[in-house]
Amino acid sequence: MKSIRVFCPGTIANVSCGFDVLGLSLAGVGEYMTVTQTPTKGITISEITGQDLPLETAKNVAGVAGLALLEALGSEAGFDIKIEKKIKAGSGIGSSAASSAGAVWAINHLLGNPYTTIELIPFAMEGERLASGVAHADNVAPALLGGFTLVRSTDPLDVVSLPSPRELYATVIHPQIEIKTADSRRILKSSLSLKDAITQWGNVGGLVAGLYREDYELIGRSLQDVVIEPVRSILIPGFDEIKAAALNAGAMGCGISGSGPSVFALSKGADKAHEVAQQLKEVYTPMGIPFDIHISNINEKGVYPA
Amino acid sequence: MKSIRVFCPGTIANVSCGFDVLGLSLAGVGEYMTVTQTPTKGITISEITGQDLPLETAKNVAGVAGLALLEALGSEAGFDIKIEKKIKAGSGIGSSAASSAGAVWAINHLLGNPYTTIELIPFAMEGERLASGVAHADNVAPALLGGFTLVRSTDPLDVVSLPSPRELYATVIHPQIEIKTADSRRILKSSLSLKDAITQWGNVGGLVAGLYREDYELIGRSLQDVVIEPVRSILIPGFDEIKAAALNAGAMGCGISGSGPSVFALSKGADKAHEVAQQLKEVYTPMGIPFDIHISNINEKGVYPA
Repeated sequence: MKSIRVFCPGTIANVSCGFDVLGLSLAGVGEYMTVTQTPTKGITISEITGQDLPLETAKNVAGVAGLALLEALGSEAGFDIKIEKKIKAGSGIGSSAASSAGAVWAINHLLGNPYTTIELIPFAMEGERLASGVAHADNVAPALLGGFTLVRSTDPLDVVSLPSPRELYATVIHPQIEIKTADSRRILKSSLSLKDAITQWGNVGGLVAGLYREDYELIGRSLQDVVIEPVRSILIPGFDEIKAAALNAGAMGCGISGSGPSVFALSKGADKAHEVAQQLKEVYTPMGIPFDIHISNINEKGVYPA
Repeated sequence: MKSIRVFCPGTIANVSCGFDVLGLSLAGVGEYMTVTQTPTKGITISEITGQDLPLETAKNVAGVAGLALLEALGSEAGFDIKIEKKIKAGSGIGSSAASSAGAVWAINHLLGNPYTTIELIPFAMEGERLASGVAHADNVAPALLGGFTLVRSTDPLDVVSLPSPRELYATVIHPQIEIKTADSRRILKSSLSLKDAITQWGNVGGLVAGLYREDYELIGRSLQDVVIEPVRSILIPGFDEIKAAALNAGAMGCGISGSGPSVFALSKGADKAHEVAQQLKEVYTPMGIPFDIHISNINEKGVYPA
């Protein structure tokens, strides 16, 4: 039977100013998935390594996303999925989105690409709905399309691919505590001041312009979040120290990755991203907080055969 | 003595989704100003035609903006200003900004350009402070720089020039009622829902991306305002009918110009902008509302010698 193994990228949603609309895809953080066509209609998940996640199709984000795609196609095809899980669930770097995106991309590929990649986003969003209760697109869009993406609107869905400046590197530190996306959304305030909203949409405009201009200074000045970060950062141990250390080390900006607890910093160049990583380690190590740390450039391809 | 006559463009602030941050400069709407060096330190305003506005320097936006520039330079120079006022005060197409921008540009020019054009923005903003009580930059930035501008931040001031797609035309209809900017700001709510804020910053991102991509469809989809327009439009006679007529005629988008009462529509191509104008006239004429109407492409130069 036909089979494909794909790389499923980790993603940073929100990117400071762009809550629920911006996201970027990581080249050096992600996991692998092997999808094999089977003679039996539907989806099975025969193996998950690296993490204890449900194999039952209806309870697994890859299963749910894949089924949504097959149902839309009215397909009689069957697929088995094996997942080599590397991104921890609840890390804030798009663990569920990686699996959801990988499954729909691989199944679509094995079926001869009845959908374009951008058309796959709504199916992958069904995985997000299972994971967090909300079918958000800010992780699955960059996971599928690669690079930076803007979700201009979710209803109707309108996703725009933005350019990714070549020298942009992310440093991502994941303190080993779990924050569920659903909990992290619950603490948000349902309203904000017009003044803060103006600050935020000025920064969204600045960040998008900075990406097109490849203006690292402008990108850096735009990486500010006056709305979500002040609330969510209280759930992240040592957030203020981590952010100060990243900026002192020369990062362009630093904020919460998705709903946290991972914190990301963006830097110009790999060397700077490594320096930032070193400084971040020196914050968490004496605090006794266990962590993973990743340094990665931007993945421009999205999901791809690996 | 040295003298220069300049064109001072009208401007559309906010551009639907970008309240307080976005603006664009009009090629076919504006006024003229002649600035002449004098032997006496300070600024005089010897003539204003077309409108009844104060000649007293401290009460005139051009005078106040010019003085702010001279004071920053510690200059002993003197200038006289003659204004051929063509944009009506309180129209919502940047009447005060045109005069403020023209004065500082012309004086700076006659002094040998001690400041770059972008550096002149804070001086022109002093004229806006006199006119409306708030030193906002969303009209003076496009008036000075031309094209589309983004005011990413006012404190510190950070203004970004955005590209202006060539085929973009504005139709602007000005119902002859006066709304003072200060009043128009007063009716705004001081807070908004997070949901609406997300919609708005998604659209700001989409509009900026659309300008860079020269993607007229994306620009059109992004020209939406769920925050300010629902409140301010109640002050504008026949707003809903005007907007429906513009969109029915094929405009990409339609919204309130600045704080109103002018309403703008953006279209692809001059022909379409003329068709839109025809439809807008057919709304106001039977309603008995007197109006001015303008059709203009984007002015890419800002203030310029004329």
